[in-house]
Amino acid sequence: MSSQKRSERAVTPMSEDVSGWYNDVVTRAELADRGPAKGTMVIRPYGYAIWELLQRQLDDRFKATGHVNAYFPLFIPESYLRREAEHVEGFAPELAVVTHAGGEELAEPLVVRPTSETIVGEMYAKWISSYRDLPILINLWNSVVRWELRPRMFLRTTEFLWQEGHTAHADEADAMAETLRMFDVYDEFARNVAAIPMVRGEKTPGERFAGAVRTFTIEGMMRDGKALQSGTSHYLGTNFARAFDITYQDRENELQHCHTTSWGLSARMIGATILAHGDDRGLVLPPRLAPHQVVVVPIGRGDQLDATTAEAQRLAAALRERDVRVLVDTRDQSPGFKFNDWELKGVPFRVELGPRDLEAGVAVLAQRVGDEDEDGRARKHPVPLAELAAGMPARLDAYHDALVARAQAFRDAHTAVVDDLDAFTAQVAHGFAVALHCGDPACEARIQETTRATPRCIPSEGDEESGPCVSCGGASAYGRRVVFARAY
Amino acid sequence: MSSQKRSERAVTPMSEDVSGWYNDVVTRAELADRGPAKGTMVIRPYGYAIWELLQRQLDDRFKATGHVNAYFPLFIPESYLRREAEHVEGFAPELAVVTHAGGEELAEPLVVRPTSETIVGEMYAKWISSYRDLPILINLWNSVVRWELRPRMFLRTTEFLWQEGHTAHADEADAMAETLRMFDVYDEFARNVAAIPMVRGEKTPGERFAGAVRTFTIEGMMRDGKALQSGTSHYLGTNFARAFDITYQDRENELQHCHTTSWGLSARMIGATILAHGDDRGLVLPPRLAPHQVVVVPIGRGDQLDATTAEAQRLAAALRERDVRVLVDTRDQSPGFKFNDWELKGVPFRVELGPRDLEAGVAVLAQRVGDEDEDGRARKHPVPLAELAAGMPARLDAYHDALVARAQAFRDAHTAVVDDLDAFTAQVAHGFAVALHCGDPACEARIQETTRATPRCIPSEGDEESGPCVSCGGASAYGRRVVFARAY
Repeated sequence: MSSQKRSERAVTPMSEDVSGWYNDVVTRAELADRGPAKGTMVIRPYGYAIWELLQRQLDDRFKATGHVNAYFPLFIPESYLRREAEHVEGFAPELAVVTHAGGEELAEPLVVRPTSETIVGEMYAKWISSYRDLPILINLWNSVVRWELRPRMFLRTTEFLWQEGHTAHADEADAMAETLRMFDVYDEFARNVAAIPMVRGEKTPGERFAGAVRTFTIEGMMRDGKALQSGTSHYLGTNFARAFDITYQDRENELQHCHTTSWGLSARMIGATILAHGDDRGLVLPPRLAPHQVVVVPIGRGDQLDATTAEAQRLAAALRERDVRVLVDTRDQSPGFKFNDWELKGVPFRVELGPRDLEAGVAVLAQRVGDEDEDGRARKHPVPLAELAAGMPARLDAYHDALVARAQAFRDAHTAVVDDLDAFTAQVAHGFAVALHCGDPACEARIQETTRATPRCIPSEGDEESGPCVSCGGASAYGRRVVFARAY
Repeated sequence: MSSQKRSERAVTPMSEDVSGWYNDVVTRAELADRGPAKGTMVIRPYGYAIWELLQRQLDDRFKATGHVNAYFPLFIPESYLRREAEHVEGFAPELAVVTHAGGEELAEPLVVRPTSETIVGEMYAKWISSYRDLPILINLWNSVVRWELRPRMFLRTTEFLWQEGHTAHADEADAMAETLRMFDVYDEFARNVAAIPMVRGEKTPGERFAGAVRTFTIEGMMRDGKALQSGTSHYLGTNFARAFDITYQDRENELQHCHTTSWGLSARMIGATILAHGDDRGLVLPPRLAPHQVVVVPIGRGDQLDATTAEAQRLAAALRERDVRVLVDTRDQSPGFKFNDWELKGVPFRVELGPRDLEAGVAVLAQRVGDEDEDGRARKHPVPLAELAAGMPARLDAYHDALVARAQAFRDAHTAVVDDLDAFTAQVAHGFAVALHCGDPACEARIQETTRATPRCIPSEGDEESGPCVSCGGASAYGRRVVFARAY
């Protein structure tokens, strides 16, 4: 699909212009394209294959923790949103509204779901009557719509793909345990699938989900030192249960309000993956999200090409037997074109197979990152053909681990404890600042105005600490330091 | 989830009122519930688990035939719909329109996709430039919106889940081969997964998809003798290619229009499955769509219940090793309640395990349909525990085959060749009428008015035949007989 033309131009270097780099990579690696309606996005097959891998692996984790999937309608009566005061205040400015349908004006406008707490609440109220019906542990895979003024592919689009979990429980303890369980699932998933070590913690009150009592977040560090919120888990208390009358008879036959939770992770995680691992040559995909973990490029002309192609197919079959996702690139293009194309598309391992390699019983293996020579080029290693397939699963795991370690080292190098505003300002220009803060929303707002940084979270693993606020000098809140950063 | 209360009332008998039976089964088997906005539906976990099984097995078939998935936006500029004249005429009355978003009135209203030919066409025009880019074989899993005045869960809802394939080809031959390939995939899937032997054929011009040159359909017979269109595959010619300027340079560097196809199958297939196999006692699920293929009910009190439950869990583990989907029902309910509940929910096999069975080293096996005693009750067979798991995959396959054979026999018994309007009218009251027809749309309309039957398709496997039209006596069209039926 005209990838030839696009690959001929180099990608804007990340070091020059992250934003230009990001758009180039998304478009030229054929992950996505802008849609015709403002702020919408078409996810192309290569990008959607990443989403399918993400979805499958996250869904497996949901099912392993006792959840089931369901589907709730796209359209929500406008009045539902208004039943939870903070919720409507948070979402009203972003709503898309259907006013006409079937050739007529609707008596009550319908909102295109921005999130489903309200409609789920309405149905849970119908379904739940006794403590025996609890907990309800449901997840939804769908898309939601939030009108965006500054859209950016995968990161902020008018419509985006995600999952939203909605659970109802008998009491706070059970609902909080669920909130933290899914927070853990997200954190483990981000590290073990997307290869991103997250900073995990609780949101400050000003950054909570609209209608939540507590919000927990995983925050990834991108290659430009900015933070990207990658998944959130909310304890909603009885806020939605009261608004939608979700009640149950307890063991003593007393009517009680349920405690509910919700938690969501979206296709933003693809944006996080691009921005956490990519480099000037393009995408760097973690193996567990890579549609092709290995690409084999047969080299030669005429009969020789037939022979190397046949051997490449045998190798691919052996790799598939070991559950390795492999593609044999038989396109009518030069090897150099193919190498560049798969480099741009972030494929973890490339195998070259030429006539001389075939004679020697080897293939030439190169990995996308982590094994470069002094000029920064990927080293090429001859590997005996007989051993290549058997060793590949371990190589992919090692590559994953190396990406995690690299991201962790980068994050550590770009994170600093700061105690005054100058150091804070310098630090958030290229990383995370760990600082004491008074917790006053007005002080948060001043910090954002002057430094463009916001409190990302109160980290779960922070030591107890108190002292003067980094900005105003007032007494610190939260009993520990807060992570601040500029955020996507 | 209050299934207890619901199961206490019997389901409306199908023989008395198919419509009441259908609503009872859908609601009480907890497949779905009505949503708050008119015509919308909530698919509950048990219903969605069927959808997931359907989706996975159909998606595997798409990928095996070379297709890839992608995602296109929900919102389409209204003007796009107008570019293909027949298309807009077909869909305009059913559109839902977003006029306001982000707190402002939109300059151009956005249509919530009723189907994606237009927006896909717009993007294909961007992506395709050379014959090397063809074919493009993309499938989308999403939901679409078509305003329905007479909604019915799974069969006709304002929003429904489906897949839509969209492909672009260099010429008619390649596009027609694709159209027929996916028609075959649907037909094979319906028989081998949903256990429904379909009547397959081409739509008459009046029943074609809006904008298609040719439409192929699979039509299932429901237990009331009505037809349910269950999947369609369209050859779109160059209609959309001309409307959206989808062109390519051929090998001679001449600019050509692409030939496109589209094909769709929706959650209607769940409705078809309910109506093709169900009976007065509730759902009858084909094993390949059954969330639980086997339910094990441990019986006893106190220590005895602990022992039978432990053995039930061992049996379940042995079944899971053989990829059988099994549930051990440990709810605090009576065995009788559980038997009725799983009967209503259509589980293929039930295993009872009591203390005496345990001593004798057997379990009691009963199947949902196909093995009844003289009073119509499921026969119970003691089966050695040691053999039960090993034999289950073959039993499930045999059960599937028996459902297909039963549906085929039912269809044959309710299908007749008719040559006059009285016989035709009598036949369509309880089944399919195979008749010669003149092909005149006015004559089709008269038939529908007087008999409520419509031409379902010109069957692919019909013999060549001509003669007087069953209604007007004019010369027959199509060179063969047409299948008429009342349809859902």
